[in-house]
Parts: sequence; C-alpha cells; structure tokens
Amino acid sequence: MRCHRMDIRVRPAEADQLGRLHPRWMAVYMEMGRTEMLREAGMTYRDLESEGVLIVVTRLRIRFHEAARCDDLLALETSLTRATTARIDHHYELLRGDSVLAEGATTLACLGRDGAVQRMPQRLLSLLDVV
Amino acid sequence: MRCHRMDIRVRPAEADQLGRLHPRWMAVYMEMGRTEMLREAGMTYRDLESEGVLIVVTRLRIRFHEAARCDDLLALETSLTRATTARIDHHYELLRGDSVLAEGATTLACLGRDGAVQRMPQRLLSLLDVV
Amino acid sequence: MRCHRMDIRVRPAEADQLGRLHPRWMAVYMEMGRTEMLREAGMTYRDLESEGVLIVVTRLRIRFHEAARCDDLLALETSLTRATTARIDHHYELLRGDSVLAEGATTLACLGRDGAVQRMPQRLLSLLDVV
Amino acid sequence: MRCHRMDIRVRPAEADQLGRLHPRWMAVYMEMGRTEMLREAGMTYRDLESEGVLIVVTRLRIRFHEAARCDDLLALETSLTRATTARIDHHYELLRGDSVLAEGATTLACLGRDGAVQRMPQRLLSLLDVV
Repeated sequence: MRCHRMDIRVRPAEADQLGRLHPRWMAVYMEMGRTEMLREAGMTYRDLESEGVLIVVTRLRIRFHEAARCDDLLALETSLTRATTARIDHHYELLRGDSVLAEGATTLACLGRDGAVQRMPQRLLSLLDVV
Repeated sequence: MRCHRMDIRVRPAEADQLGRLHPRWMAVYMEMGRTEMLREAGMTYRDLESEGVLIVVTRLRIRFHEAARCDDLLALETSLTRATTARIDHHYELLRGDSVLAEGATTLACLGRDGAVQRMPQRLLSLLDVV
Repeated sequence: MRCHRMDIRVRPAEADQLGRLHPRWMAVYMEMGRTEMLREAGMTYRDLESEGVLIVVTRLRIRFHEAARCDDLLALETSLTRATTARIDHHYELLRGDSVLAEGATTLACLGRDGAVQRMPQRLLSLLDVV
Repeated sequence: MRCHRMDIRVRPAEADQLGRLHPRWMAVYMEMGRTEMLREAGMTYRDLESEGVLIVVTRLRIRFHEAARCDDLLALETSLTRATTARIDHHYELLRGDSVLAEGATTLACLGRDGAVQRMPQRLLSLLDVV
C-alpha cells in the first residue's frame, strides 16, 4: 500500500502552447496518484469527507527535469513517505520509460468541519500501516 | 518592476467540491502574476518565444495556510527575488485582506529551441534590472 | 440586469499548443459571465446553494468563429434571453474589439437537494424581472 | 474506426463544489474520445499539425441529463457521424452503466497555417473511410 503506480496519458487539453505539459497538471496527477493509492487500500477521500473530515494539501513541491508532451504515455509512481497523526507525506515521480520527467511532494493535514486542524483519523492511519 | 499586485476573483470553476480553491489554481495564479509583472515592464513571454527562447518552470513550491473560497476577491503579490543568467526566482503571496492564504515560489530557466538550457536573454535581465 | 459585459484576459494556462484558447475555457467564461451578472444584481449562486437549491447547466452550445489567443484582452457580453419557472437561458458573445470570436448559449435548470427538477426560486426570477 | 469506447475515471480535480463533474470537462472528454479514436486508426492530430494543418472545433454542443460525480468510473462512446472535405462531425455519449449522463456533438474544420479554412487532408478522410 505504500507504493502505487499508474499510467497517465497526457491529454491534448493539458499541453501548453509549446506542446509541453503545463505545470499545474503535475499537481492534478499527484492528487490522482494518492487518491488511487488510497482507493486500492479500500478507502476514498470522499468516504472521509462524508464523515466530516477534510484532508487538505498544506505543502506542495514540484521539480521539473524534462518536459512531458501531449500524447505521451507516462507512469506516475506515488510513495507514502511519512504518516503521523499530524501529517501525511507523499512523494511522486512522473516517468517516461526510465526518465524521471518530474518529481513532487505533498504534505496533507486533517481539518474538521470547523476548519480547525485535528488528528488524522485512526482508520486512515491504520490503513497506512501506521502503528 | 520588482513587485506586482493584481486582483483575482476566484472563479466558480476553480472551487473543488468543498468550495475551496483547488491547489492547482495557485500554480495558475502564480503564472498570471509573473506574466503580468513582465507585461507591465513592456515584455511578454510570447515575445521571447517568438525569438526561439523558452522560459520554463523548473521548481515550484506552495504552502497553503488558509482556504480561498469560490467568489473570494483576492490579491496576488508577486516579487522578483533573484535573477541571474541561469535562473529567475519569484515569490508570491495570495491575500484576502491582510490574511496570507498561500505562499508560493518558482524558479524559471531558459531553454533554446533544442531544449538545452541556455543563458537568460540579456534583454530580459536588463528589464529586470540585473546588471 | 439583462446584459452584462466584462473584460477577460486570456491566461497563459488557457492557450493550447497552438497558442489558441482551448474550447473548454469558453464554457468557463460563460459561467463567469452569468455569475457576475447575477452578483451585480445582488445575488450569488452560492446564496442559492446555501438554501438547498442547485442551478445546473442542462444545455450548452458554442460556435467558434475566430481563435482567441494567449494574452488577448477580450470582452464577454452575457445576455439573459429567457427566464421562466422551468429554465433560464443566456446568450454570450466573446469579442476582441468588434470581432465576435465565439458565441455561446446555455440553459439552466433548478434542482432540489434530492436532485429532482423543481421550479426556479421566485427570488431569482424576481431579480431577473420575470413577473 | 467509426466508433470508439474508452473508460474515464472522474478525477477529484474535475468535481465542482457540489461534487458534480463541471461542464467544461465534458468538452475535454470529447476531445479525448476523438483523439483516441484517431490514434487507434493510426494517426494523431499532432501528426497533422506537424504537416501544417490545424483541425479545430467550430461547433460544440452538450446536453447534460444526469450528474457525473467525483470517482465515478464512466464510459465515453465516440461516433463519427459525418466526414466531408469541409467538416468532420462526431457524437459522444457519456455513460455510467446504462445511463446516459451527457451527450455531445462537435464539428471540426481544417485550417492552414495562415488560419484560412481549407479542405480536410485526404489522408485523414481516407482513414475515416470517406471516399
């Protein structure tokens, strides 16, 4: 559960005027990666929201090494790098074959319906193998 | 020229299912900020591209402090923090009144038509007051 | 209240790889037009949602005449063409100077929290001058 | 070649604040459908562009019947409904199981590098079985 790999075809709508993947899509892909990783473990962020818990991004970092291009078939590898009651960190690599086109990292926090930071739900941490 | 402020109304299409600004839009706003800053100085990235020079994002960092919401009228402050022949760095603050909702930073590099890294155009650096 | 005009600067992120405005943005602009028109009349779709009423798009049509380009400063003219208890229709023109780059039309319907179609709220129709 | 079906998972980033697929994504899905249909036939729009020919959307229509929701696994069926030297028409259905959530239609035209309308490339029409 701590690693996940998915294929991503760069959509025509995601290329900028130079035919390159616009940076914002890496943020969207990263969200897809961690969402799919959680889904495979048997949970969705939507489940958590329906229980009144919001999991939000508090930090996001991306480094671009090489341009992804429209129509490219890429792979996104998502890893869980840390999970505590306060935060969950993921790392991401966007690959074309063996080339790492971009790397990313996010930190997630947990908010209650009132918007205040609260502990990550135990159910989520258990799923992530955090003791 | 080293600072720029613009108003941004959060569009309905930019809110996620919680009514919060989706993280990717901060990346889009940051691009708007540095593009408008350059335009006010009398140049556009499009001008540069027509000369065969690509200015691309190589690093992007965002920290989210508070949620922006659909319909919010925000201000984006963009600052040029560093400009050398190798890279241009910007810092960004997204504000609602006096509250800093999010901060961001980008590093730009310059590529030739062949995709190889090259020196930033002197014309661009001069405009940015880099000696 | 039946007409509204707003300026729109085509964002770098909205250009496709040919430097042309990607069609989906016309749908986003149209939503901005009708939302701003309603806001100027003193109401927001968010107000309505907080009352348990959803106003949703059921039909959308766009004709593209000329390409809008990155950095273009355009005007969007939104007109209310029909408002009944069952539907609200808008027409849109995207202009660069006197040239009509694109035209659009939408039909909105009203749903309750259960997803069933219901009458448009009287408060909304009154605002739109429907007797 | 005249029909194509693909699975589409609604991404978290595509849901609006009501958890519903925002209308603009139907336009993006439609582009994915016709692009994949062409790719399976052995050609890409990128190939055509590299030959100096632009295939652009001139009309787009969508009818929404039921909301698609975040995380839904949908199918998009794309059909070629007409292809002449002047235009290519497609029809689209977005399905969840047997329910048609949305229908769409587009008309494509062909432009030369100068932006003037020209005949559809014979190579494209042949591929589409147009005599």
